[in-house]
Amino acid sequence: MISRVSVRLISRRCFSHSAVRREIRDIAELPDRIHPKYQEARNNDLLTLHWPSPPRNILITKKPSAPSITTLVIEYAQHIHSTYPSTNLIFRPATAHEIQCSLPFPIYTAFENRDTENDPGFQDKVDLICTLGGDGTILRASSLFATTDHVPPVLSFSMGTLGFLGEWKFKEYKRAFREVYMSGANAGYGSALLEDEHHHGNETHSGAAAAQSEHNLLSGWSSIRGKSMGPGRGARVLLRNRLKVGIFGADGQRVTEPETETAGGDVYAMNEVILHRGIHPHLAIIEVFIGGRFLTEAVADGMIVSTPTGSTAYSLSSGGSIVHPLVPSLLLTPVCPRSLSFRPLVLPANTPITLRLSEKNRSEEVEISVDGVRMSKGLRLGMEVRVWGEELERETHGLEKHEKTWRGGVPSIVRGSRSGLGENEDHWVGGLNGLLKFNYPFGDDGASQ
Amino acid sequence: MISRVSVRLISRRCFSHSAVRREIRDIAELPDRIHPKYQEARNNDLLTLHWPSPPRNILITKKPSAPSITTLVIEYAQHIHSTYPSTNLIFRPATAHEIQCSLPFPIYTAFENRDTENDPGFQDKVDLICTLGGDGTILRASSLFATTDHVPPVLSFSMGTLGFLGEWKFKEYKRAFREVYMSGANAGYGSALLEDEHHHGNETHSGAAAAQSEHNLLSGWSSIRGKSMGPGRGARVLLRNRLKVGIFGADGQRVTEPETETAGGDVYAMNEVILHRGIHPHLAIIEVFIGGRFLTEAVADGMIVSTPTGSTAYSLSSGGSIVHPLVPSLLLTPVCPRSLSFRPLVLPANTPITLRLSEKNRSEEVEISVDGVRMSKGLRLGMEVRVWGEELERETHGLEKHEKTWRGGVPSIVRGSRSGLGENEDHWVGGLNGLLKFNYPFGDDGASQ
Amino acid sequence: MISRVSVRLISRRCFSHSAVRREIRDIAELPDRIHPKYQEARNNDLLTLHWPSPPRNILITKKPSAPSITTLVIEYAQHIHSTYPSTNLIFRPATAHEIQCSLPFPIYTAFENRDTENDPGFQDKVDLICTLGGDGTILRASSLFATTDHVPPVLSFSMGTLGFLGEWKFKEYKRAFREVYMSGANAGYGSALLEDEHHHGNETHSGAAAAQSEHNLLSGWSSIRGKSMGPGRGARVLLRNRLKVGIFGADGQRVTEPETETAGGDVYAMNEVILHRGIHPHLAIIEVFIGGRFLTEAVADGMIVSTPTGSTAYSLSSGGSIVHPLVPSLLLTPVCPRSLSFRPLVLPANTPITLRLSEKNRSEEVEISVDGVRMSKGLRLGMEVRVWGEELERETHGLEKHEKTWRGGVPSIVRGSRSGLGENEDHWVGGLNGLLKFNYPFGDDGASQ
Amino acid sequence: MISRVSVRLISRRCFSHSAVRREIRDIAELPDRIHPKYQEARNNDLLTLHWPSPPRNILITKKPSAPSITTLVIEYAQHIHSTYPSTNLIFRPATAHEIQCSLPFPIYTAFENRDTENDPGFQDKVDLICTLGGDGTILRASSLFATTDHVPPVLSFSMGTLGFLGEWKFKEYKRAFREVYMSGANAGYGSALLEDEHHHGNETHSGAAAAQSEHNLLSGWSSIRGKSMGPGRGARVLLRNRLKVGIFGADGQRVTEPETETAGGDVYAMNEVILHRGIHPHLAIIEVFIGGRFLTEAVADGMIVSTPTGSTAYSLSSGGSIVHPLVPSLLLTPVCPRSLSFRPLVLPANTPITLRLSEKNRSEEVEISVDGVRMSKGLRLGMEVRVWGEELERETHGLEKHEKTWRGGVPSIVRGSRSGLGENEDHWVGGLNGLLKFNYPFGDDGASQ
Ligand SMILES: NC(=O)C1=CN([C@@H]2O[C@H](COP(=O)(O)OP(=O)(O)OC[C@H]3O[C@@H](n4cnc5c(N)ncnc54)[C@H](O)[C@@H]3O)[C@@H](O)[C@H]2O)C=CC1
Ligand SMILES: NC(=O)C1=CN([C@@H]2O[C@H](COP(=O)(O)OP(=O)(O)OC[C@H]3O[C@@H](n4cnc5c(N)ncnc54)[C@H](O)[C@@H]3O)[C@@H](O)[C@H]2O)C=CC1
Ligand SMILES: NC(=O)C1=CN([C@@H]2O[C@H](COP(=O)(O)OP(=O)(O)OC[C@H]3O[C@@H](n4cnc5c(N)ncnc54)[C@H](O)[C@@H]3O)[C@@H](O)[C@H]2O)C=CC1
Ligand SMILES: NC(=O)C1=CN([C@@H]2O[C@H](COP(=O)(O)OP(=O)(O)OC[C@H]3O[C@@H](n4cnc5c(N)ncnc54)[C@H](O)[C@@H]3O)[C@@H](O)[C@H]2O)C=CC1
Repeated sequence: MISRVSVRLISRRCFSHSAVRREIRDIAELPDRIHPKYQEARNNDLLTLHWPSPPRNILITKKPSAPSITTLVIEYAQHIHSTYPSTNLIFRPATAHEIQCSLPFPIYTAFENRDTENDPGFQDKVDLICTLGGDGTILRASSLFATTDHVPPVLSFSMGTLGFLGEWKFKEYKRAFREVYMSGANAGYGSALLEDEHHHGNETHSGAAAAQSEHNLLSGWSSIRGKSMGPGRGARVLLRNRLKVGIFGADGQRVTEPETETAGGDVYAMNEVILHRGIHPHLAIIEVFIGGRFLTEAVADGMIVSTPTGSTAYSLSSGGSIVHPLVPSLLLTPVCPRSLSFRPLVLPANTPITLRLSEKNRSEEVEISVDGVRMSKGLRLGMEVRVWGEELERETHGLEKHEKTWRGGVPSIVRGSRSGLGENEDHWVGGLNGLLKFNYPFGDDGASQ
Repeated sequence: MISRVSVRLISRRCFSHSAVRREIRDIAELPDRIHPKYQEARNNDLLTLHWPSPPRNILITKKPSAPSITTLVIEYAQHIHSTYPSTNLIFRPATAHEIQCSLPFPIYTAFENRDTENDPGFQDKVDLICTLGGDGTILRASSLFATTDHVPPVLSFSMGTLGFLGEWKFKEYKRAFREVYMSGANAGYGSALLEDEHHHGNETHSGAAAAQSEHNLLSGWSSIRGKSMGPGRGARVLLRNRLKVGIFGADGQRVTEPETETAGGDVYAMNEVILHRGIHPHLAIIEVFIGGRFLTEAVADGMIVSTPTGSTAYSLSSGGSIVHPLVPSLLLTPVCPRSLSFRPLVLPANTPITLRLSEKNRSEEVEISVDGVRMSKGLRLGMEVRVWGEELERETHGLEKHEKTWRGGVPSIVRGSRSGLGENEDHWVGGLNGLLKFNYPFGDDGASQ
Repeated sequence: MISRVSVRLISRRCFSHSAVRREIRDIAELPDRIHPKYQEARNNDLLTLHWPSPPRNILITKKPSAPSITTLVIEYAQHIHSTYPSTNLIFRPATAHEIQCSLPFPIYTAFENRDTENDPGFQDKVDLICTLGGDGTILRASSLFATTDHVPPVLSFSMGTLGFLGEWKFKEYKRAFREVYMSGANAGYGSALLEDEHHHGNETHSGAAAAQSEHNLLSGWSSIRGKSMGPGRGARVLLRNRLKVGIFGADGQRVTEPETETAGGDVYAMNEVILHRGIHPHLAIIEVFIGGRFLTEAVADGMIVSTPTGSTAYSLSSGGSIVHPLVPSLLLTPVCPRSLSFRPLVLPANTPITLRLSEKNRSEEVEISVDGVRMSKGLRLGMEVRVWGEELERETHGLEKHEKTWRGGVPSIVRGSRSGLGENEDHWVGGLNGLLKFNYPFGDDGASQ
Repeated sequence: MISRVSVRLISRRCFSHSAVRREIRDIAELPDRIHPKYQEARNNDLLTLHWPSPPRNILITKKPSAPSITTLVIEYAQHIHSTYPSTNLIFRPATAHEIQCSLPFPIYTAFENRDTENDPGFQDKVDLICTLGGDGTILRASSLFATTDHVPPVLSFSMGTLGFLGEWKFKEYKRAFREVYMSGANAGYGSALLEDEHHHGNETHSGAAAAQSEHNLLSGWSSIRGKSMGPGRGARVLLRNRLKVGIFGADGQRVTEPETETAGGDVYAMNEVILHRGIHPHLAIIEVFIGGRFLTEAVADGMIVSTPTGSTAYSLSSGGSIVHPLVPSLLLTPVCPRSLSFRPLVLPANTPITLRLSEKNRSEEVEISVDGVRMSKGLRLGMEVRVWGEELERETHGLEKHEKTWRGGVPSIVRGSRSGLGENEDHWVGGLNGLLKFNYPFGDDGASQ
């Protein structure tokens, strides 16, 4: 407890450089993350979010180099801190440094120079992700969890430049956060939850965080409940399938991307993986295999393997169909293929896809990008990229009905309309029409044909 | 029994007109159909066909008005009859009349003038469908089962004009039929099967067919087994999702298509349902709703709602993506839309889609076609077409592992390569490359770029 | 003169049925048409309209069965009649009958029961066409001149349902008409024009119309000039290439379409000619020849041969590129081709294109439509459709510079912006962006990305 | 003369390094180039090549780093040298160094270290270009003439990897060269030609080349004529429009690309100019103006402005229509636009098009490529790329009919079929079907549907 007090004192002297360093705490100090459940609702493809106990560790990410957004991030953080005092706010290192002086309470980060093998990272601690920015901000946040199949739920606010994935408008942030925070805290199994929370707490909390956990029990849901619109209303979640990308060297070994800290492992992508000729002037020649069988040789600027979520991103620009995020599939879309007959394909999500550089390829390598971020090393002859759709698993084994849950994907909190039934597709249909100008009518004012 | 004898005699005098009539027997005389099981195989999205007892009632359909195919149908029928004496051959009425004189044994049909409410039809009797023709022949055969969710397995031979859905070449017919006939007749539950057959026989056979059933027990699998390539080899089945189409009048009541005998019910389509302006010169204006919510107003020649199977048919010509038949989805593809921004959509199979004529539409009605067959009445103002993807159900409840099965869809017998692993996609990838000339390489001979 | 007076008297008794008949006069009574010149302007691909003498015979066409437009037609006619008293107003027969009682002066038409071989038709008499309606109205008006290569200039007003070809808004009609009427009436060659007019008049006028011609000389331009914005301002004209369609029987003879009165001749289309399977369920199979050489066999719903003007009509919906109306070319665009590799083609305007039904085609005939109007007879085996781009000819031979002119095409009066240079493309670029929503930006309000 | 003899001697000692240097002569020594005429033929859009006197200076270019092609280049050069002794063979510097030892006669080049302002280059000396390689080789050869509007005729042989622009097969090289060499040397104006040649010779030849010119008069056409297939047969030429690209700095001044030696001038492209995001991960944002007027803001990977010739290159891969090389037009095709409604446009060849980086663009610059070659500097904010179609001019002023000619474009020698009429489109239609697999039929063998 002493350390916390001193930090608070120090934070008032934020102009002092040495003080600043201490104000940003190590994420390792936080209790371990809480895994919510995602339960099926009647007549609805969206799931309902159920916290076993109130979320505590909130990651807030933002679009970089946009000062106006930084201001709003501070406003947001202050609101969360004062309304939900038992929560801890986590930021990416750069953001933490940028805003810590503006916040009169300690914040957390996963320091970049930590031992990534042993020290905990975001994926060990974050209960809930909040993003303030555009689609890129959501993609970047999701890529912090590129090596785990348990991504925390994502509450995304689109800011100005409207994105397709960003569900909420910033001005709704109070209602939105409350809805997510309270989700699943319904009277019905209140006591069970409390117990569960106790149990959970004992097991996972440690050090300075343990006391805080106690505090949660008192100040968490119960203190908020009065403000809530009713305990039974759950936040709705769209589980967005990702795809898993593994890069293999000519020796058959996995190639590691040092920057993403994926020690020898595969990474998940929310939108897509792309091979592209990049700066090389000549057409890339890429061999495509599906299910282990040779499908075709693409002579093209590049090849995209996309999730349904990514079907409205690069794949769309390259002529792919728009695929609803709930269709379990992968899209194979060529970029500027030198062919009249390379129609985009939609494959079952569980089809393994392999991409190799052809021996006929004229440059030494082609670029590999995951969710719009280029990897430091390209694909060379002999190497291969292997892609699988992420399998969303329904965990049912030995569970009571209300305990069944889903796992995998990016659990995206969907903005609900107040009215009920049949409005579930709101967000997607709304995005098609409102943002992508899908089938936009001809005529003078866009209103009538 | 007397009548049967006389029929046989008469059949030798096929030139006699009155005799001919009697030679074609009523399908009602046949034992009820046998429902096979479709079981999951390891590492394979295809299912394995398991007959509880040997199939008996074989429907053979063919492409109409193609004399050369008629000759092959006769050859095929004679082979089945002589090699599998306990089978009964069923034909559509027109085909039965066309070929009966060429066959020295009785054949069966469902007479057109029967009481469709009470008298049994193809869906009550057929164990196995064999089609000789092109994709149209398969579509027509499947539409004989447009009102049931238990379509018999389909063994399709493509004849000359090669189709995408037709799996087998005619010259393979002996091997193909044997493989299907024997499928699942493995040593393991041989005796159980015999018993089952007894039981089944007693329960369902009736009248003249009962004696024949006994014959089956002796002459069925056991008599063939020696010729088989080994009892354990099962035919592989691709369950092709259909979609269900209901047409509703302005009064909210289902509209019946008299010709398809769908008394007040919905029909299933294997490829697609299409609304099209048809002969009307002006663009059709159609409102599209998904999940009960307004999606868009299509100003177009027409609108296609297609299954993944149909993604290589009309939807392809209209610019839709190619969707693998195992992706549980529906395609919404406009035909010549008067819009720059109507990109084809791929929706979850369980999304209900509704199409309505807009009040702005200038003609009185638009055509409705199901699998390429135009309905006798078009869609008028106030009416609506409702479409759902067929749900393939996995029946597991209370069943032993080997009893679990799938239901729904069109169970299509896939032509397997002899080698095993990884070759499962053969038929589809092969069709893309070999038939649709997918990503056909530029260059002088199509072999090198 | 007597007859004219009596008509005037009679017109006051329009309720009398017999009187009505006489009030609509025969177009034959009018003086022959005046052919304007189209001269090149500096730095400008648009031409300038030059009347040798004021236009007299004005054809007004309208969208059928739209009562609100009929009212505006009457307003328009009354304005022309009272402001330009020396003009005569011509209508299509149905319109003439519909509105004559509302107009207190005689109107003209080409009666449908006239001897089309010998009696003059619209193409012999009309100086200027005004259309009130949408694109269809312009197409229908243009098709009244489908057999001549001298289409009168077209002043088109779009009414409500905005069209792409309609240049002017109805509320601008006074300015628009004055601009066109005065176009070329500049001081410079005023007297020459008067002479020309005399000459022309003597040669061509006849009967009752001769006196009126005299009147023109006094009341034409000179009476209006004061109201004009200056004599030198010429209306700008976009010459829209048409294409010429000839249909030939199996005997090699031209087939005549009775309804369009094209006695044995070819017809011009402003948008396109289309072959389409129409009501036949099966794909049409059409052989395409260019320059006499076999190009390809289209297996499709249909084939479009389009002008650049038509590139924003049906061809657009079928996936064709947008071609600027000043590119001398023909578009060959398939409708729903059963091919992955049938990319639309743009050919030189002078390439002869021939379309034939293949022997493999399964229906007896395919529909032929010209500018959206289906011909009474379809294309059958052995017949062929031959298409050429209309050649816009520059008549220069032995002419002074200011006399050079262009001939052919549909001379469409373009709506000019007040400012000068560089704004010539206004109408087309404006139409792309404003009406077709070309490259419509993504984002919330369509204003920002 | 002495120097030449010594060179010959030296050439036998090609292993000596110093000797080698002298064997490659400076192109400045050659007589100035001869400009052929391109005359219109009846019923034919192709032109006929007419040499006023036999061509002398032959540039031979080849695909780099392909040893097998080098061997054929030597074979080709030896054939030309021995059969047409009055010709001089020119190579690019690298090729000259690569092959000189294999050729027992002097060859010419334009040395890279020459004073490009004052010393003559390829465009001053080359009469005829022969390319051995693929489309890239033709593009590179054409780019040697990127600053002149008089490109010599191009005789292109495609080697192995078949190209779309390469007309001839290498095995035809003897016939092909003879046909081009003799083209226009018809009896009719033989003597006039001789005179012309005298005259021309006096005027332009200089130094050591003068004597050679005399030799030409004797050994040129007259010596070959016997071998020719008849003097009247002219080589047919397709004039391929290029486009002209100017790059302007923020200061409004032209930016020079040092490598292409285009001192302050514009360059011509045969295929296209492309702006592309290149290595930058974010979408490029480019403003497009046509005719000085804002057309649209492209948010895309890039923008292509292409000639009709380039319509089968990158523009095709990006979804553009195929435009026949004789349609005077420019294509505006976006590369992967983030828009559902950016349909490719075809504009009149004389429309000026301007591309600018938007202020919203996120990277500092975008790549500029001309005919597949990236410029050393990209396009930055404030700069602009201006593009015009090259105007093919018909020079008629004061000329006799047979003297009229065309100027501009890349005069490409088309491979003629022996038969006459109607076969003119051979090369293009043949290329579509044979190489690009245009509308390639579905079905088993590509032969029947
Ligand atoms: N994604 C794509 O389609 C890309 C296309 N290119 C094209 O390549 C051209 C440069 O050619 P290379 O240096 O050989 O590059 P490259 O080695 O990448 O080959 C380009 C391909 O385009 C073909 N090609 C070039 N011009 C053509 C034409 N006018 N019509 C039909 N095919 C044509 C060539 O035969 C070759 O197959 C550029 O002008 C550009 O048009 C360049 C980059 C990407
Ligand atoms: N699926 C489609 O896109 C179809 C298009 N059409 C087009 O309609 C034309 C006939 O027009 P209507 O009789 O009014 O039929 P309609 O009432 O079906 O309307 C056709 C639509 O096309 C527009 N249009 C016509 N010509 C155009 C042009 N040159 N550029 C841009 N838009 C144009 C009209 O404004 C109208 O919105 C035909 O020439 C054909 O091009 C006809 C049938 C189907
Ligand atoms: N423009 C087009 O592409 C049109 C396509 N069709 C399609 O034809 C089907 C009816 O077939 P038919 O009665 O034989 O008509 P049809 O004789 O017009 O032939 C249709 C063609 O489509 C092929 N086909 C049918 N289903 C297919 C599938 N699932 N995948 C790949 N190819 C397929 C057939 O092999 C045949 O080549 C309809 O369900 C519709 O999908 C019907 C009309 C026009
Ligand atoms: N030509 C193209 O369309 C290109 C697209 N991209 C896409 O951009 C993504 C990376 O995004 P940023 O880093 O923000 O790059 P960015 O700044 O280039 O923006 C990409 C655009 O795509 C939108 N976007 C991203 N994901 C989307 C989705 N799933 N659905 C709809 N729109 C989506 C964003 O809102 C933004 O407008 C990549 O995953 C890739 O899909 C990247 C490069 C080129």
